[in-house]
Amino acid sequence: MAGFRNKRLCRPGGWGRAEDALSLADQPKLAAYLSEALGGMHEPPDVPPAWERPPQPSRLSPAALAVLAEQLTPEAVSTDDADRVAHSLGRSYRDLLHIWSGRLGPVTDAVVYPADEQQVAAVLRLAAEHDFAVVPFGGGTSVVGGVDPLRGEHAATVTLDTMRIDHVNIDAEAQLADIGAGALGPDLERKLAEQKFMLGHFPQSFEYSTFGGWVATRGAGQQSTRYGRIERMVQSVQMVTPEGIIQTRNVPATAAGPSLLGQLVGSEGTLGVITSAVARIRPRPEATEFCTFLLGDFDTASTLVRDLSQDELPLSVVRLSDASETRFMLQAISSRPTLVRRIGKAYVERSMRRRDFDKQQVCVLLVSVDGDRPAVNRAVRRIRTMADLAGGMYLGTGPGKNWEKDRFRHPYLRDELIARRVMVDTLETATTWSNVSTLYEMVQQAIAGAMEEAGTPGVVLCHLSHVYPTGTSLYYTFLARQQRGEELKQWAHVKQAANQAIVAGGGTLTHHHGIGNEHVPLSGEHGPIGLAAVAAAKKTLDPTGIMNPGKLFNEKPGCGE
Amino acid sequence: MAGFRNKRLCRPGGWGRAEDALSLADQPKLAAYLSEALGGMHEPPDVPPAWERPPQPSRLSPAALAVLAEQLTPEAVSTDDADRVAHSLGRSYRDLLHIWSGRLGPVTDAVVYPADEQQVAAVLRLAAEHDFAVVPFGGGTSVVGGVDPLRGEHAATVTLDTMRIDHVNIDAEAQLADIGAGALGPDLERKLAEQKFMLGHFPQSFEYSTFGGWVATRGAGQQSTRYGRIERMVQSVQMVTPEGIIQTRNVPATAAGPSLLGQLVGSEGTLGVITSAVARIRPRPEATEFCTFLLGDFDTASTLVRDLSQDELPLSVVRLSDASETRFMLQAISSRPTLVRRIGKAYVERSMRRRDFDKQQVCVLLVSVDGDRPAVNRAVRRIRTMADLAGGMYLGTGPGKNWEKDRFRHPYLRDELIARRVMVDTLETATTWSNVSTLYEMVQQAIAGAMEEAGTPGVVLCHLSHVYPTGTSLYYTFLARQQRGEELKQWAHVKQAANQAIVAGGGTLTHHHGIGNEHVPLSGEHGPIGLAAVAAAKKTLDPTGIMNPGKLFNEKPGCGE
Repeated sequence: MAGFRNKRLCRPGGWGRAEDALSLADQPKLAAYLSEALGGMHEPPDVPPAWERPPQPSRLSPAALAVLAEQLTPEAVSTDDADRVAHSLGRSYRDLLHIWSGRLGPVTDAVVYPADEQQVAAVLRLAAEHDFAVVPFGGGTSVVGGVDPLRGEHAATVTLDTMRIDHVNIDAEAQLADIGAGALGPDLERKLAEQKFMLGHFPQSFEYSTFGGWVATRGAGQQSTRYGRIERMVQSVQMVTPEGIIQTRNVPATAAGPSLLGQLVGSEGTLGVITSAVARIRPRPEATEFCTFLLGDFDTASTLVRDLSQDELPLSVVRLSDASETRFMLQAISSRPTLVRRIGKAYVERSMRRRDFDKQQVCVLLVSVDGDRPAVNRAVRRIRTMADLAGGMYLGTGPGKNWEKDRFRHPYLRDELIARRVMVDTLETATTWSNVSTLYEMVQQAIAGAMEEAGTPGVVLCHLSHVYPTGTSLYYTFLARQQRGEELKQWAHVKQAANQAIVAGGGTLTHHHGIGNEHVPLSGEHGPIGLAAVAAAKKTLDPTGIMNPGKLFNEKPGCGE
Repeated sequence: MAGFRNKRLCRPGGWGRAEDALSLADQPKLAAYLSEALGGMHEPPDVPPAWERPPQPSRLSPAALAVLAEQLTPEAVSTDDADRVAHSLGRSYRDLLHIWSGRLGPVTDAVVYPADEQQVAAVLRLAAEHDFAVVPFGGGTSVVGGVDPLRGEHAATVTLDTMRIDHVNIDAEAQLADIGAGALGPDLERKLAEQKFMLGHFPQSFEYSTFGGWVATRGAGQQSTRYGRIERMVQSVQMVTPEGIIQTRNVPATAAGPSLLGQLVGSEGTLGVITSAVARIRPRPEATEFCTFLLGDFDTASTLVRDLSQDELPLSVVRLSDASETRFMLQAISSRPTLVRRIGKAYVERSMRRRDFDKQQVCVLLVSVDGDRPAVNRAVRRIRTMADLAGGMYLGTGPGKNWEKDRFRHPYLRDELIARRVMVDTLETATTWSNVSTLYEMVQQAIAGAMEEAGTPGVVLCHLSHVYPTGTSLYYTFLARQQRGEELKQWAHVKQAANQAIVAGGGTLTHHHGIGNEHVPLSGEHGPIGLAAVAAAKKTLDPTGIMNPGKLFNEKPGCGE
């Protein structure tokens, strides 16, 4: 009998859909730049190799399978190999190494597709009885090992795909929506748009990730400066735990003790399955305007961004690339020259000379504002004045519109680079404005130093985005040649160096990717007593440890099973 | 040797300072109105009676006292009777009943005044060794029994007064301040104002409450619509727990798992002592403008408030009184007639007739906006247009300015009423806009019904304030004649009826007062599993149960020791 299949997942060999893939062959300038910076790049194979071995046979007992099928219907339980493999990988650098090496990591023993919270509760009851771990699964786009099918102390793993729980019920009067965990980004925004609303959470994974994944990760979208991080949008959560169902009160605010809501959001499947949540929705803005500027150096630009963030402007996207990322972007743009671009380039270069800008130091700042037309116009005038006072050069609205068009495309470039045997990963942190330049340097140098130590000097790019009146996130991309046969070790060395610098420099381990299975222990963030406080609920809600083992509270990160 | 004394506490016999006390004798119209509504009022005694009995002798062992004095210096440890009594009462209705009956409840066995977090940690270590409970104490203004000196299973109670930990260290660049728990409202705002900053947290207790108390209570101030609830201001907390010191990361946002910060804010002293926190501060606004309107009925007015709250206006104070509270306020105002007021009254009455307003149904709406001058002007124009479309009558800026002048004065009126043997208390909840009218009626009827059942029909007033785009708080005041000899039972009956209605109606048990010792169990808010999740950290951080026994997680509320 044909069962459910999640047709919304990324293709098996990489990000998204094959027809959207990027090729460096179309961007010769960028390819040449990277080849020089990294000391050579390989030609990529067309597609990843087939898996060397099939996945291990399902370790789930026939009795367990039978009773799962009885509770959920047979169509909702799958032990199909392709289905199991598709639910055993996220899209982290480690996952992509698995894919391009053809070597499978651990594979989940079954996939279940519950229809509602009662069926989720049934799965959790059976997990305790039949000794299997449960891994909640939304879109499978985690970049930190959040859906790795680890079984902990248990006999098997069942991955719980939330795709069937995807309702969107709108309360227009209160500007709230009750949203099922399995609602996919574009579907959700489409349903809200039908009633002229929006949520406004646009992580880079937007096209392939789910609402439930966003809430479990405690993440932030590209327009979080305007619309808030997911935990600011979510007002109430329903979570099925091994001990029963929790439904937090659907109220705008409360003083009734510590925040239960804050304990559930960001729990990454370790306490239970988030089945739905009520989130604030908003009327769609009348107008959006982009402005782009070139600034003389990172410090000047960063001070401008701080001033903008403290000025009560309706800022939506804010993205300040450091000099290194700016050079990278200019290579990417100039790969596809057009007459207009050539004229523009000549103008920009003349203007830069007039301002005494150092080509090696300039930084691009992209800002957008959303709102009603008069508010947007006022904000643009104010932003342009402030940028002018900081010596900035206005580059018009075009670059912003291009950014918007390509906003979800970056993961495809990562695929292409990994195929060409480039180590490429991103990591992010956040700190207060008074600590930005210190932390920026510390982490940048830690990453660059670690790559150099490994004998593979590379490129480190950084941008500030997701700005707050009190601080900002810092988002790093690092690239180097892969050390063949030592890819994981090479990457872990860099990652560890970056995390140490982040902890020592007063940042947070992650601003929006989450902790998953790949990060250093959470004790680096909270200290042992703080971590004990956070972890206390785990034993209470999940006494037998069936929920997403090895994530979040794992003290030996990144080691798989 | 003279020890430390907290000179900032309310006078022993009631709220605030004696020179600020209110007398109904100066408000004859209000007195007459209340007398009629409640079926008579007593003449008050001038001052509360002396305590019938002195407090029980300190149960703290000489050994414990000696070692406390050694660790903290002798001046920082007090067993003085007056000092102990002053630290054993908050300012709840129950506390005021104690005061006006002259019958003391349990009294703390000693008061300590630690100088810093290390001394706080020393007190907590000694507590475990010498078997005493620790009650953290800020301004002592809790209206829910938050500082009741309950000792749980322990031999004695020590109240820990944070007054000496009152630093205010400003990080102007990041618009943050590191603030000691003991900083008193007016002192804190004065220090911030010296550098042109403000925090913006103005609870009714502002003049007598402390920053640490605000954070521990997870409360909201009168301008929370503009400046946020305390948990939105606070970015990082330092808490001394029996297991050691927790210092959360000082970052604007994080995706590193569930919120540790959210677990500490609102913990009401049950997990440890909040010694300091880093909070967002803001430049003081250039302009503030008040508008007041009269609207035809509560539904129309409430819809207008909802529309205002969803319109991205810089709303600061928002306060919509229902018809009952409006009548009460009009009595209070007309108690002190002046020529201007008489002319104004005539004008208002004529205008009301022209609009066919029903005098019994009209509601007063008070709104203020803060910001730079052009933004404030735009907002006022917009608000007046929207109020106009809702059929509202503009009453000018005067009533708002009067409200601001008297904003911290209401507790004095409560003192006066209790002295006159009136039961008077307030309670508050919050809900979504789509549920406001249902919950409003349910709670209103529950309170009125419970008072009538007890044979003391009374008055129930309500206002909406602290508005959010998705909902609002509802704040109730209820008054009735006291049942002499049965005061507590009478009050508990009303309180229980209100809480049941709140839980059944989908509200939260408290929007800003906190849970303390007087509320129904938190399980009504979270259900048993949710409560277990919230309470899990208690056992981990406070394994011997020394921190503020009987609060927050108490399943038998309001029963004292």
